[in-house]
Amino acid sequence: MRDSHELIECAPPGVAVAKFEYRVPFFDTDAMGIVHHANYVRYLELARVAFLEQHDQPYQRYVEQGLHVAVIRVETRYHRSLRFDDRVTVACWLEWVKGVSLGFRYALHCQEQLVMTATTDHCVVDFQGRPHRMPTERRDAFRRLLVPSVA
Amino acid sequence: MRDSHELIECAPPGVAVAKFEYRVPFFDTDAMGIVHHANYVRYLELARVAFLEQHDQPYQRYVEQGLHVAVIRVETRYHRSLRFDDRVTVACWLEWVKGVSLGFRYALHCQEQLVMTATTDHCVVDFQGRPHRMPTERRDAFRRLLVPSVA
Amino acid sequence: MRDSHELIECAPPGVAVAKFEYRVPFFDTDAMGIVHHANYVRYLELARVAFLEQHDQPYQRYVEQGLHVAVIRVETRYHRSLRFDDRVTVACWLEWVKGVSLGFRYALHCQEQLVMTATTDHCVVDFQGRPHRMPTERRDAFRRLLVPSVA
Amino acid sequence: MRDSHELIECAPPGVAVAKFEYRVPFFDTDAMGIVHHANYVRYLELARVAFLEQHDQPYQRYVEQGLHVAVIRVETRYHRSLRFDDRVTVACWLEWVKGVSLGFRYALHCQEQLVMTATTDHCVVDFQGRPHRMPTERRDAFRRLLVPSVA
Repeated sequence: MRDSHELIECAPPGVAVAKFEYRVPFFDTDAMGIVHHANYVRYLELARVAFLEQHDQPYQRYVEQGLHVAVIRVETRYHRSLRFDDRVTVACWLEWVKGVSLGFRYALHCQEQLVMTATTDHCVVDFQGRPHRMPTERRDAFRRLLVPSVA
Repeated sequence: MRDSHELIECAPPGVAVAKFEYRVPFFDTDAMGIVHHANYVRYLELARVAFLEQHDQPYQRYVEQGLHVAVIRVETRYHRSLRFDDRVTVACWLEWVKGVSLGFRYALHCQEQLVMTATTDHCVVDFQGRPHRMPTERRDAFRRLLVPSVA
Repeated sequence: MRDSHELIECAPPGVAVAKFEYRVPFFDTDAMGIVHHANYVRYLELARVAFLEQHDQPYQRYVEQGLHVAVIRVETRYHRSLRFDDRVTVACWLEWVKGVSLGFRYALHCQEQLVMTATTDHCVVDFQGRPHRMPTERRDAFRRLLVPSVA
Repeated sequence: MRDSHELIECAPPGVAVAKFEYRVPFFDTDAMGIVHHANYVRYLELARVAFLEQHDQPYQRYVEQGLHVAVIRVETRYHRSLRFDDRVTVACWLEWVKGVSLGFRYALHCQEQLVMTATTDHCVVDFQGRPHRMPTERRDAFRRLLVPSVA
């Protein structure tokens, strides 16, 4: 839809990445004939849940511990539009971790072209929505996901 | 849900603002018991459409002219969560205008507490998704909405 | 979209009806240019919640009593399509009540033309999803809504 | 959620069936902690699109021919609820075909338990929404999908 000098965006080399493959359902499109911009925020969730499952622990485990990984900020940049039945790959990786919060980065590609980039910031909270310090082993685990592995 | 020193956010004095009143439907909530973060992006659209209708021209008029006001960037910051049946007010105003693009700012309040702030950037495009220079009278109209009216 | 001899459908005279006015948001449309059929099921919920609030008790009251009015069956018949910015009126009334269950009927009109008819069946359940006998005064209240009021 | 003597529902033996595997995303849940009933209608679409692709022709082909397979009726019966991360299998098969219309049947299972049954009726329409006689080879193809294959 718009001019972009960013042809591709990748995670820094060595960093843990989850890739979620998604085929655009008809119900995600709008009367412009393309995926409605709000629906991409859902695609980010699918990739983030896959990331936690593959590299950290299933989201359900957080819930069992009385915690949620709440979203406190979302930023999305749309480079191309998606249409019904397009196959999109959502790559997700961790960008930073602090005491109660963490941030993810995303890049969506379709047929090797950049569709969208995004970042989401999160806060670990209890069921009352109060910020909750991450268990030490959790934070350590997250930090290891930031450090490129040495081959 | 989180600590916020911003208790309230308003449009600059004198700037054209549209306010959209919304009552949270059950189907907007998720298993955390709160409105799912992706749904807020839809609330922004409701307020933006109201803004265009009240201060510019109905969105339908753009479509009749072969144009769309496509979303190219969204940034949302969540300060409090919303629950089923909450009444939220979405205030929307124009922040900037250029040749083919423009930006909106939003503040959501519920019971006089700040729920969320957001910005969206847009590009005027034709039906093929190509950027399209705004008609001069359109851009002039938008610019007047930026300038506080002198009483 | 389709031939219909039903030009209009109304609640039986004297029966309690709630009417919910809705203006079709852009995000409810799909790439056919019309409201996606799944979204109408949400419109029914909006009208049903309005019905309970106006004629029975706010849905929140059920939740406070540890109950939900779960949906166990939905039937929708689409007569015409809706487009962005259409103003639709969703009329909702009670059709039947039993010990743990009840049924609603709906008719959607836009510009005095029938858009859709629907029925939904419900079961009162506790938070574990087990059927729960309606409190007597609740059932009595529902039954009065079925009986046309004598002027 | 409710008592059901139907423990399982299957397509008639020999009939063409498409199975769509789906893992419940968090954004499909509501404040009851379960998948919102309106979202199941989307699951039906996913399975129907898979059915057309596997046994008829990709839905895109219809669009290229200036046609849509519009939904004119949906009936859903909910037997159990689904939660975040549940894996559900949506089976879809053709039940009947006429000159301009056709009907599908669906059964959703999760961990070998029946979650939901549904039927959808459709009308082939042109881009103006007018009923359009199915091309003969299309209708013949559909009819073969109804007839159990003789081994």
